[in-house]
Amino acid sequence: MTESPHFGDLLCSAIDRVGAPACVGIDPVHERLPVSVRNGPGVEPDHVRAFCLGVLETIAGIVPVVKPQSACFERFGAAGVAVLADVIARARDLGFIVILDVKRGDIGSTAAHYAAAAASTGAHAVTVNAYMGESAVRPFLEAGLGVYILVRTSNPDSDEIQAPRLQSGETVAQHLAGFVSRLGAEMVGFTGLSSVGAVVGATKSAADGKALRKCMPAAPVLVPGVGVQGGTVEQVRPLVRPGATSPGRLGMLVNAGRSVLYEPPGPGEAWEDAVARAARQFAADCAGLAAQ
Amino acid sequence: MTESPHFGDLLCSAIDRVGAPACVGIDPVHERLPVSVRNGPGVEPDHVRAFCLGVLETIAGIVPVVKPQSACFERFGAAGVAVLADVIARARDLGFIVILDVKRGDIGSTAAHYAAAAASTGAHAVTVNAYMGESAVRPFLEAGLGVYILVRTSNPDSDEIQAPRLQSGETVAQHLAGFVSRLGAEMVGFTGLSSVGAVVGATKSAADGKALRKCMPAAPVLVPGVGVQGGTVEQVRPLVRPGATSPGRLGMLVNAGRSVLYEPPGPGEAWEDAVARAARQFAADCAGLAAQ
Repeated sequence: MTESPHFGDLLCSAIDRVGAPACVGIDPVHERLPVSVRNGPGVEPDHVRAFCLGVLETIAGIVPVVKPQSACFERFGAAGVAVLADVIARARDLGFIVILDVKRGDIGSTAAHYAAAAASTGAHAVTVNAYMGESAVRPFLEAGLGVYILVRTSNPDSDEIQAPRLQSGETVAQHLAGFVSRLGAEMVGFTGLSSVGAVVGATKSAADGKALRKCMPAAPVLVPGVGVQGGTVEQVRPLVRPGATSPGRLGMLVNAGRSVLYEPPGPGEAWEDAVARAARQFAADCAGLAAQ
Repeated sequence: MTESPHFGDLLCSAIDRVGAPACVGIDPVHERLPVSVRNGPGVEPDHVRAFCLGVLETIAGIVPVVKPQSACFERFGAAGVAVLADVIARARDLGFIVILDVKRGDIGSTAAHYAAAAASTGAHAVTVNAYMGESAVRPFLEAGLGVYILVRTSNPDSDEIQAPRLQSGETVAQHLAGFVSRLGAEMVGFTGLSSVGAVVGATKSAADGKALRKCMPAAPVLVPGVGVQGGTVEQVRPLVRPGATSPGRLGMLVNAGRSVLYEPPGPGEAWEDAVARAARQFAADCAGLAAQ
C-alpha cells in the first residue's frame, strides 16, 4: 500500500476550508476558448495550456476541487497529454484537490498501469468504470488514489444499462452503489467518509438519489450534470448525507464545467473576470447545500 | 458519418487472407522486455518502441490483427503516447488491422474527443465500455471506427457485476449482448458481420458463450484471456458463428498477448525467433477453429 493521505479526509478538509462542496470541470475545447487565447502564441495545445492555467489562477480559493477531463487533452495526442500534466501540477501548487476524470476500467496489471499513469501526474483521485469488477478498482486504491466509481450517469440513455431491475429487486445502479459501499468499508477515514466514492448525475438525483445514498452512506459522491446539462444544485439534495456537521461531511461534490469555463464576459469584462464571477455564484449555490 | 471502409468486412477479409482469427496483444512491460532491448539506447519508452516495432516486423503475415494496450504506453506519460502512435502507424504500414485497447467509456462530446484521439492514430477499432449507454458508443462509430463493447470479461471477480440476473431473466452480460446486437443491426456489412462487436473472455466462453452468441449473431467477438490467463483456444468454440463459410466469418478473434510476446527463447534462439515461433503456433491453433 501507500503513504498517501486518506483521500476522503483530505477532500473533506479542503471543502471545509472553502465552505462549498464545489468542483469545476476543466474541459477545454479549442473552439470555445476566448478569442484572445486562441490568437495567442503557439498551436492548439499551447492555447489549451494557457487557458487552463488562467482558469486555475482565477478560481483558486473560490472552489476547492478541479476535475480535468482527460479526453479534452488526449485528443491532441502526446502534446495534449503533456499539457494535462502541466495543468495538474499547477492545480496542486495552487492548493486544489485534483480529480482526474479518466473513467478508466481495466483489470490487473493493465489497471495498475493506468493507476501509475494517473498517480504520476499528482492527481488525488480518478473516476473509474467498474463494469469489470473489483479488480478494475483496487489498483487505483493501491496506488494511493481516491476513486469515484460510475454508478448513475446523467445522460438519458444511461437508463438502458443502469436502470433495469435485478431479481434481487435493486436496479443495476443500486447494485453498483452496494459494490461501492462494500469496497469502501475498509477505507473510511476519521471524517466518516470513505476514499471509495461514486459518480451520480444531477439529473438522476431527484428520482434515484435517496435510494442510492442509502446503499452507500460513507461514499463521497461526485455529481456532474449541473449547469448546461440541465441539472440544478438543488436537485442533488437527496444525495446529501443526513446529519452532516460541515460542508465537507455532506459527502457531496457538485461539478460544473462549461457553465463556469465559458461564461460570456459582460461589456468590457475580461474573460477571467467572467469565469471568477461564474465560479463565485456556483460556489455560493453549492454552499447553500450545507444550510440544510 | 464517414468514408471509412466497413470495419466488419475489413476484418473479415484480413482474417481470410491469413487464414486464422488470431490477434496478438501488444502489451509491452519494460521489466519483461528482452535484456538486449532493455540495454539498448535511450530511456524506457525508447526500449518499448524498439520492442514493439520488432514484434510487429516479426509477426507480420502470421497474424492479421494486433491489439495495442493503451495503458502500457500511457504509463510513460506523453512520451509513451507518442510511442503508441508510432507503433500503430507501423502496424498499419505492415498491413495489420489495429484494435486499440482503450476501454474508454464516456458520453457525448467527451466520447467524441476520445474517438478523435483514437481515429487520429489510424486505429481501425477500439474497445469501449458501454456502462453509460448508447451515447458512450456512437461517437466512435461516427468517427469511422469499429467498436468492441465489453460484455463478459475473463477475470473471476467480473461475476459480481456481469452475472446477476435481471427480472427479464437475462444476465447483465446478456443484456449488454442484446445492446450490442441492437446497436450493430444498422451496421452489418456484406460479410454478415457488424462493425459493432463484443469482448467476451475465453474463460467465460465455455459456460456463457453459446447464450451470448445467440444474443448477438452478427457481432465480431474479441476473446482475450487465452494463454497466461488460463483460457484455451478450444474454449472459445461456443462463440463461433454457426455455419460460417470462412475463418473471417466465424465472427471470432482470439487474442493472446504475453504468451506470444514473452515466449522464452530456446538455447541460442533470438527473441524475435521465439516470438515468431509462438505466434505461428497460436495462429495454427486459431486456424483450427475454422476446421470445425
